[in-house]
Amino acid sequence: MIAPVPLAKAYRLLNHGPVVLVSSAHGGARNLMAAAWSMPLDFDPPKVAVVIDKTSYTRELVEASGEFVLNIPCRQLGQATLAAGTCSGRAGDKFAALGLEALASSAVAAPRVGGCVGWLECRVMPEPANQQRYDLFVAEVVAAAADTRVFSDGHWHFEQEEKALRTLHYVAGGHFLVSGEALEVRA
Amino acid sequence: MIAPVPLAKAYRLLNHGPVVLVSSAHGGARNLMAAAWSMPLDFDPPKVAVVIDKTSYTRELVEASGEFVLNIPCRQLGQATLAAGTCSGRAGDKFAALGLEALASSAVAAPRVGGCVGWLECRVMPEPANQQRYDLFVAEVVAAAADTRVFSDGHWHFEQEEKALRTLHYVAGGHFLVSGEALEVRA
Repeated sequence: MIAPVPLAKAYRLLNHGPVVLVSSAHGGARNLMAAAWSMPLDFDPPKVAVVIDKTSYTRELVEASGEFVLNIPCRQLGQATLAAGTCSGRAGDKFAALGLEALASSAVAAPRVGGCVGWLECRVMPEPANQQRYDLFVAEVVAAAADTRVFSDGHWHFEQEEKALRTLHYVAGGHFLVSGEALEVRA
Repeated sequence: MIAPVPLAKAYRLLNHGPVVLVSSAHGGARNLMAAAWSMPLDFDPPKVAVVIDKTSYTRELVEASGEFVLNIPCRQLGQATLAAGTCSGRAGDKFAALGLEALASSAVAAPRVGGCVGWLECRVMPEPANQQRYDLFVAEVVAAAADTRVFSDGHWHFEQEEKALRTLHYVAGGHFLVSGEALEVRA
């Protein structure tokens, strides 16, 4: 089941460093790209930072719309995640090409990617210098949701589920690390 | 064995989203703090972004010295990593308090944290607006190294080793996820 995540806990979807799919839409076009370089930037209201290359089609759509969604794919989307990072949406609709479902978002026009396990709907906070110099976008998270099979009460819990739902952590080429076991440390 | 990592491959130490220990030094003082919010920002020359809170002692030392090291702890440092994120270096030397060894760095005065599995020595690129508004520091990586038991030829390879050397991915409280198995995807 997909359930909303309270905004104050939204950073926890991204805290452990998963690769994300950045989805965007503008003027009837939509796209998605893979991004290893994203992180939380504040708790409440939650903010995120993500690097979106100047040459990407996503960059055009994000700059035009001022919105994007960070979708957190899981192991069963490994192939689609790699493909999303290696082809361009200028050549045709990537959702169709990759067999991914586009789900309506709750607060932004950019669609959510079906089959993911977490979603952060974001509105860009315009930062022309960061965008130009570092391809760095800062955005406020305006809605968040997660697959309750693996995230609830502000925590990931992958143990009870098939490995297909674990998050992906990108290294390079076609090489990912899958999220592993939990470690509880007492202060 | 600790071996240098070529600068063009340094981003791969951080790409999969591990928690880091930020170490710093200035005027005879030194400190370290835990940070879940860091990411690569460019390939070559490599840059990183990291959030360092205004109230932290590390912030003082980093602003005064213009340098820091991102140290990548592994599972066997879980306790020390949590402690490094919950006590302040103003109360006394954290390396001593946490039983961590300070190793000399190769290019910066800030020490490296012994027992970690990767190190990125960084020089701050002054960005007053980002530092003030978002606690966000941008830095160039000027030297990098890794424990060859788990990182070589630009790739992490945790499979052959004890789980003690796997990287940590922070969620919240005392809750971490340990880096899991490798997934190879063909384009």
